[in-house]
Amino acid sequence: MFLSELIPVPQARDIIQKKQKTMGTEKVRLEDAHQRVLAQEIISYHSSPPFDKSAMDGYAVQAQDTFGISPSQTTKLKIVDRIGAGDYSNKILESGQAIKIATGAPVPQGADAVIMEEYTYERGDELEIMAALTPGENVSYQGEDIKQGDKILDPLKILRPQELALIASAGFNEVEVYQKPHVGVIVTGNELVDPSPNLEGAQVINSNQYTLRALVESTQAWVEVMHCRDDEELMQNALLDALQKYDVVITTGGTAISKGDVVVDVVDQLGEVLLHGVAIRPGKPVGFGMVNEKPVFMLSGYPVAAMVQFDVFVRPYLMKMQQIPYQPRLVKRRASRKVPSNLGRTDYIRAHADDEEVTAILSRGSGVMRSMVDSNCYIFIEEDLEGIKEGEECLVLLFDSFQVYNP
Amino acid sequence: MFLSELIPVPQARDIIQKKQKTMGTEKVRLEDAHQRVLAQEIISYHSSPPFDKSAMDGYAVQAQDTFGISPSQTTKLKIVDRIGAGDYSNKILESGQAIKIATGAPVPQGADAVIMEEYTYERGDELEIMAALTPGENVSYQGEDIKQGDKILDPLKILRPQELALIASAGFNEVEVYQKPHVGVIVTGNELVDPSPNLEGAQVINSNQYTLRALVESTQAWVEVMHCRDDEELMQNALLDALQKYDVVITTGGTAISKGDVVVDVVDQLGEVLLHGVAIRPGKPVGFGMVNEKPVFMLSGYPVAAMVQFDVFVRPYLMKMQQIPYQPRLVKRRASRKVPSNLGRTDYIRAHADDEEVTAILSRGSGVMRSMVDSNCYIFIEEDLEGIKEGEECLVLLFDSFQVYNP
Repeated sequence: MFLSELIPVPQARDIIQKKQKTMGTEKVRLEDAHQRVLAQEIISYHSSPPFDKSAMDGYAVQAQDTFGISPSQTTKLKIVDRIGAGDYSNKILESGQAIKIATGAPVPQGADAVIMEEYTYERGDELEIMAALTPGENVSYQGEDIKQGDKILDPLKILRPQELALIASAGFNEVEVYQKPHVGVIVTGNELVDPSPNLEGAQVINSNQYTLRALVESTQAWVEVMHCRDDEELMQNALLDALQKYDVVITTGGTAISKGDVVVDVVDQLGEVLLHGVAIRPGKPVGFGMVNEKPVFMLSGYPVAAMVQFDVFVRPYLMKMQQIPYQPRLVKRRASRKVPSNLGRTDYIRAHADDEEVTAILSRGSGVMRSMVDSNCYIFIEEDLEGIKEGEECLVLLFDSFQVYNP
Repeated sequence: MFLSELIPVPQARDIIQKKQKTMGTEKVRLEDAHQRVLAQEIISYHSSPPFDKSAMDGYAVQAQDTFGISPSQTTKLKIVDRIGAGDYSNKILESGQAIKIATGAPVPQGADAVIMEEYTYERGDELEIMAALTPGENVSYQGEDIKQGDKILDPLKILRPQELALIASAGFNEVEVYQKPHVGVIVTGNELVDPSPNLEGAQVINSNQYTLRALVESTQAWVEVMHCRDDEELMQNALLDALQKYDVVITTGGTAISKGDVVVDVVDQLGEVLLHGVAIRPGKPVGFGMVNEKPVFMLSGYPVAAMVQFDVFVRPYLMKMQQIPYQPRLVKRRASRKVPSNLGRTDYIRAHADDEEVTAILSRGSGVMRSMVDSNCYIFIEEDLEGIKEGEECLVLLFDSFQVYNP
């Protein structure tokens, strides 16, 4: 497998999008549904409030009994019942009467307003009233928030704390959401070892196992990370095994655009390589294929290249699989220094942006992790631009926007 | 316990900040450290790259052997060794020789450049070279990214995928981070029942159990949620029990500014109520106290009021406990309609903002959850403003910014 022609980024995205898969749905307990994507309509079983309820601690009364009342012109009512929280009264309130009522309790029949405790003075069964009320004052009417049978939420909504509250109030303790994809990451490379203070010979620390785990986690997907040596048979077995267990497979390493690169060859033998080599910097040696109807993303072994490839190609795919609204924030900033680029290539330059300016973090080679640590964004240079001049406005992709988005 | 004077928001914040606690630290495996806050300096055990390494699949050569070479004027070298990934060569390369080398492998002694495979043609032990190289081309030098003994990260850094990669490369497979606080939430109210299609009498669905769980989760803290009836003795026991188990206790309900509100009374008996009643809308009946040297946040039972109180008072506290950089994004938008407010009161009006305009979502009462679902921000009206006129610029707090912030 040896593709020498680099495909432009938009065309690469198209190829991948045509193979977009969507997860099925599952029922989860409402307490586990935070940040999940709703997969059903919610039709309320209840009105909310479920009854006319008191919005205050105070006394249910007839508003007309308070007309004209002030601290200097008070009136007295008779307390005929007391309703605590969770309690209710069967009494029908008449003119001249008051019923003590807790916040949230049902306003008794006959009453049309609630006077706050602060404007009253209670002595035995006698209540002195020191303020006037309008009818409906401090009453939350039945169905004011939601009416029984109302459709209160549509599918595809991300469940924030407030959506969970609304769903609970509608009478649901579980909810249908989109499943999270299970992602298997196969990090390849004979030279890779786990982090340790001591290294021998040509050993290199496998840092991609952490990067890729965290990158996948940041899309809300499940992730498991494996390691495989650069051996065709081992790689075949690892890939076939992963394709059985996971919805998506990501590999890192072994994608360089040359002969003898195990991963791309194996995907080519087992399925179809649809993409290999994109006009992007960093990240040119990226591949995408389908094996057994499952997507395989072949990322570079270089940490920085792998991150860019993930952000550009894998993240949108994993988000869309779960129906997560995703809209990386592209903002305009003034370039504090010039940034070279080539026509026909899309650049994602590691950079640091404040509210006005963006500064490219210059570094040699795509292995320079330091530049990713110091950056909070990419400068995005489209393929039809030949770089950015000092002081020129350019497009910036903020890392903080690479996440679940609530429109 | 009955505080009738409302405290301004900035003063309430001060009172709470004076009791700010900070969590201790713990060691976690690097694969579990994503989004945690670093609590140690990272001093690298290694240089990175650990040796001069090849940045390409190709052939290590002496650059001078390629000077003047082009596709029409090629030269031939002798291949004397082959280095796969994870492998290395003990040969010392001489002029006229080439050693095949994989990306990431150590550049052999004597060589000073790597020619990409694409610009060569291999026949047996003979290598035809079709391009000129400058010394150092396609070589990543030892320590180019990190030097052994360098301090590569300071404490208080949020660990993103790239920081994890850097820490791994430095030789660490575990890392010291700030502990997450354990938060106990006690939802009070006799009337509360779990969500169900069928309700009786004055029963109200306990939606706050879901809201508060999700709100606490969104700060990265651990959370457990309980329910307690409005009974002084039960509440005392629940609170004392929670104070033993958790670092922070949050209650909802029973905070109305009146006599007979169980939660505030109990906190007053067991410890000290430092705050009760804030000049904020919605959310006036909010309390804060310390019991057994632990903070207790007393939130309203009204879902919307509780959310605002959480966002304004609890969220910054829980973030700071873990040393998470937190900076809710306050942006300016044009108000599409007028928003009334009172002098001396801080308003957090549920609203929906796009890139230019913000529209307050009008609704009666603080129990109206619908308005939270439709909103993506608060309009923030400071205490010295008497509302916002139509078309006027105002300050907006975007919900999406209520999270871990990477400066």
